[in-house]
Amino acid sequence: AAHAQTPPPPTIQPMNGAPEIRDGEQRFKVRGRLQYDVYSNEWDAGVDSPLVSPSVDAEDGSRSYVRRAFLGVQGRFSDNWRYKVDFVLNPGASGDDATTGDAAVAVDDAYLEYAGDFFSVVIGENNVTAPLEDRTSSLDIPFLERSSIINAYGYGRAAGVAGLVTGANWMAAIGVYGDSLNNSDSNFANSEQTSISGRFTWAPIFETSPDGVTLLHLGVSARQRYNGDDALFRYRPRPLNGRGSRWVESSSGSATQDDLSYGFEVAGQWNAFGFTGEYITLEGETPAGVQVESDGYYVDLTWSLTGEARSYRGNQGSFGPVVPHNPVTEGGWGHWGLIARYDFIDLSDIDAGTARGEQTAYAFGVNWVPIDHVRFMLNYASTEMDRVVNTFPVAPGISAPDAEADVISLRTQFDF
Amino acid sequence: AAHAQTPPPPTIQPMNGAPEIRDGEQRFKVRGRLQYDVYSNEWDAGVDSPLVSPSVDAEDGSRSYVRRAFLGVQGRFSDNWRYKVDFVLNPGASGDDATTGDAAVAVDDAYLEYAGDFFSVVIGENNVTAPLEDRTSSLDIPFLERSSIINAYGYGRAAGVAGLVTGANWMAAIGVYGDSLNNSDSNFANSEQTSISGRFTWAPIFETSPDGVTLLHLGVSARQRYNGDDALFRYRPRPLNGRGSRWVESSSGSATQDDLSYGFEVAGQWNAFGFTGEYITLEGETPAGVQVESDGYYVDLTWSLTGEARSYRGNQGSFGPVVPHNPVTEGGWGHWGLIARYDFIDLSDIDAGTARGEQTAYAFGVNWVPIDHVRFMLNYASTEMDRVVNTFPVAPGISAPDAEADVISLRTQFDF
Amino acid sequence: AAHAQTPPPPTIQPMNGAPEIRDGEQRFKVRGRLQYDVYSNEWDAGVDSPLVSPSVDAEDGSRSYVRRAFLGVQGRFSDNWRYKVDFVLNPGASGDDATTGDAAVAVDDAYLEYAGDFFSVVIGENNVTAPLEDRTSSLDIPFLERSSIINAYGYGRAAGVAGLVTGANWMAAIGVYGDSLNNSDSNFANSEQTSISGRFTWAPIFETSPDGVTLLHLGVSARQRYNGDDALFRYRPRPLNGRGSRWVESSSGSATQDDLSYGFEVAGQWNAFGFTGEYITLEGETPAGVQVESDGYYVDLTWSLTGEARSYRGNQGSFGPVVPHNPVTEGGWGHWGLIARYDFIDLSDIDAGTARGEQTAYAFGVNWVPIDHVRFMLNYASTEMDRVVNTFPVAPGISAPDAEADVISLRTQFDF
Repeated sequence: AAHAQTPPPPTIQPMNGAPEIRDGEQRFKVRGRLQYDVYSNEWDAGVDSPLVSPSVDAEDGSRSYVRRAFLGVQGRFSDNWRYKVDFVLNPGASGDDATTGDAAVAVDDAYLEYAGDFFSVVIGENNVTAPLEDRTSSLDIPFLERSSIINAYGYGRAAGVAGLVTGANWMAAIGVYGDSLNNSDSNFANSEQTSISGRFTWAPIFETSPDGVTLLHLGVSARQRYNGDDALFRYRPRPLNGRGSRWVESSSGSATQDDLSYGFEVAGQWNAFGFTGEYITLEGETPAGVQVESDGYYVDLTWSLTGEARSYRGNQGSFGPVVPHNPVTEGGWGHWGLIARYDFIDLSDIDAGTARGEQTAYAFGVNWVPIDHVRFMLNYASTEMDRVVNTFPVAPGISAPDAEADVISLRTQFDF
Repeated sequence: AAHAQTPPPPTIQPMNGAPEIRDGEQRFKVRGRLQYDVYSNEWDAGVDSPLVSPSVDAEDGSRSYVRRAFLGVQGRFSDNWRYKVDFVLNPGASGDDATTGDAAVAVDDAYLEYAGDFFSVVIGENNVTAPLEDRTSSLDIPFLERSSIINAYGYGRAAGVAGLVTGANWMAAIGVYGDSLNNSDSNFANSEQTSISGRFTWAPIFETSPDGVTLLHLGVSARQRYNGDDALFRYRPRPLNGRGSRWVESSSGSATQDDLSYGFEVAGQWNAFGFTGEYITLEGETPAGVQVESDGYYVDLTWSLTGEARSYRGNQGSFGPVVPHNPVTEGGWGHWGLIARYDFIDLSDIDAGTARGEQTAYAFGVNWVPIDHVRFMLNYASTEMDRVVNTFPVAPGISAPDAEADVISLRTQFDF
Repeated sequence: AAHAQTPPPPTIQPMNGAPEIRDGEQRFKVRGRLQYDVYSNEWDAGVDSPLVSPSVDAEDGSRSYVRRAFLGVQGRFSDNWRYKVDFVLNPGASGDDATTGDAAVAVDDAYLEYAGDFFSVVIGENNVTAPLEDRTSSLDIPFLERSSIINAYGYGRAAGVAGLVTGANWMAAIGVYGDSLNNSDSNFANSEQTSISGRFTWAPIFETSPDGVTLLHLGVSARQRYNGDDALFRYRPRPLNGRGSRWVESSSGSATQDDLSYGFEVAGQWNAFGFTGEYITLEGETPAGVQVESDGYYVDLTWSLTGEARSYRGNQGSFGPVVPHNPVTEGGWGHWGLIARYDFIDLSDIDAGTARGEQTAYAFGVNWVPIDHVRFMLNYASTEMDRVVNTFPVAPGISAPDAEADVISLRTQFDF
């Protein structure tokens, strides 16, 4: 009688990108994405003098490149035992420079997970304790690049162990991490950086209906980092582009060996209208014992011309894709969205570095999602990068240490 | 009644390499290839004098390496919205040197496509306007390496937007391109190279029957390049091998900042017999304003001992694989083919470079395809590399600037 | 009537990791693995003097890294024509340094195979003639790292052609190889290294029952290498860790241009208890004509607390995974195993190098396999690294040339 009981054969789920194959509790799916960017940069240092560092005036140009190309898999050995590995394959890497992120091969998520109904343990490269914008996939963030605070304060994935407890509209996570698996491990005589971090999110309002979403999201996060024998921590935002120079920064002399940061999140959605705001404050200490401080924030406004709301994952505290109501394949316009951002970071109180200062940016964007998994993005960002210290011997009245950057970017993106 | 209409489940197409899964209009397929080459090189500079640069006499050796290893995917989100990404994974990369093509990670095709019945728009890395031999997959070219004109004039993929209109036996394409996504983007202050290109092909004779193919293919292409702030264009053929030194070349002093090239194609197939010829002429200008000129051509003859014709894609103007009539798995011999090539490039009128000259090559090959997707290739190429300027103070009557290369190569190839 | 015969549609095999799709004789399966290691190193040079090279005392630290991340495919074009490609994607590569194995992209197996019932021909990167521990997958070796003799004598994969004949409990293989496809091929003027190797294994006792396995495995192997124009061969074991410094080694002055090694294998399994021992002896010659000698061995003892035997592949002469009888998903404990190793290599008779000496290691481990395809490993290894020559002018009676290393490692591993 036992052998009369044949398990049902494996099946292929209805396709949404790449097909997922299931067999009992087991699952397997290939994953990937491509982001192809074209952008034009124009920097203005407020003076056209040969005395001004050429790195300012010279940052004018147009380039195209792969911002992200991923190939990976996701699967389950059972309902509880799950895994995900996304390889970052960078065709334009200028070297295997892990410190700049410009390596030929890296990983995004790369973890084993033991998941129950309301909890989860994640082992490997992950970012489950990172702030809202970092937790939202690069496929779904409204602008091409994340905000200055997310980039400058070094959020992103690292390798470690994290535990989560989750509900339909809340989550709490705590993690202990080493450095990222993408960091070069050439020196095995040194201990690597470590961090402890946590995040709690709660959506006191979260209602979905066929017509839209009503949402209020609140979140807090904290992270304590220690550099170990690895490089000191530096804080260096770009003018809302993905590559190139950084005008305002904590110089190497004001880099810290440990830092503690707190993040505060608020986001809302009322059908076609949405907003997101995050504020992060950071304190660190240099090897010389000097205390440094920095903080910053951003505010996003999003308006879906075609009416779709951003999707929200209550048990992750993050946003998902905007799926068009009427894709072009069904005679519609797809999703069209307008977005605006105000972005600010204060790196003035970063010890005595000559490049310390403030950066303020305004950004606007148009997003078109003709069909789920395909997105075109057009961004314009105007950034003021104001240094505190005038290091150039230019004429009086000319604010040489202040620079301005105008960046126009166009992204073609698809994922599967 | 609406919910009574269950969509049919996804299906797996009959396998031809890797399986393709379909769900309504959606499709997904993993792709890949491996080309494992063993080759022996013997260079002869016509003189065994220590006065002759050692790079000539020394290019004697035998090596094995991966010529190409790809892993990628191809799919459709709908009939119209399609994508393809082939990652080039190079296990023997000597560095992430994108300028020499010897990077650990690169992309081959990497694009999003909107395809109608008779037209198509391609966004991303592609080569839809490239000449015949470049448009034919590296899996299907008759020799291990493409001709001198295709390699020296810098054809191949780049990132941009291209539009195509196609019929059963013709195609017309035009594209606007930046540089390749594989080029290193370390300097974001410089504008990258750009190009405009187009191609038109027509097969006035194109008949297929169970016994074979009768084909006459005609094609023209044109390309205008401008280097922007990127490196100048150099023209450097190899002696029909895939790696190593180049004896005849435009030196860096005769590199151009823009060039314009025209290509002319003719190819035919009469069942087991085929030929292909391409002629390309190029004019460029150096930064000093000097006009440089180059042209070249090749002629291929192919004879299928086992009778199969090359397959031809009328709407792409390119050749596909030779599929054996009687694979060894059905008791046959597979496909056996003999091929011969005459290859010539004139780089004499390239300004004043000391390495300018002519290169003439004869190549012969035997191809065995025991079963579709597996191919063994044996090539012999004899190349004369004749420089114009004698830069070596050798004895009178000894043509030191002329070198000869004999290359024997064996490729084992499979794809899925 | 012929067209009435419709071939059956492709099917998906019951999943065991990633799904395998079959269509008649054709097969296709995606493959991959991730090994995420955390380890702590403590070296002790027996003296805390500044006169001792800092590379000894300084090798103290804790790091995490990806030991192996693979993504590949495996398939068949027919029963006989098969292929396998496993790409090694290294997110923490410190450079594309193929000579140290620290490249961003490499291949593990990468071959085409023609397989009959009792024989096989393999073309491409493979290790079918390598000794027992090298033939056993990195997923299934009992410790995190292979033994000193396997690593120091340069076993592993290379590209070439190998032929095998096999029975249910024996195999004989011979291969002719060039260098590995992962070796950098920047210098095409030099001939690469070559080798001839063979292996024969026989299991005079090999009985499997539902309760366990009774096994006696015997094996011999031999390899003759010649370096060609490539780098000379050096012999450098690590203290049973995967990265970092090597204290005992043949210095570059005692590197050889050819060597000949013989390996002897014996292994057994009696249900939950197993052992493995290998002895290898090597003779080589330096360019100066000096004969050098080395040998070494290891002995492993394995005890499965939960009763499972190691699986054995009689026709490959290698061990496979330990599959838990009672995985945690069915309420069991999974597989728990205890392992112990004694490891020795004698590099004293390696010409006149100042770093020559002996290395002796004891290692202990606990392995937990909660469910097939997931494995956690905890290793402790204590290694004595005793140089023959005292090169440090330290105080009398202090054995400065001797160092000790304690390594604790934790691996999280999954594969599909």
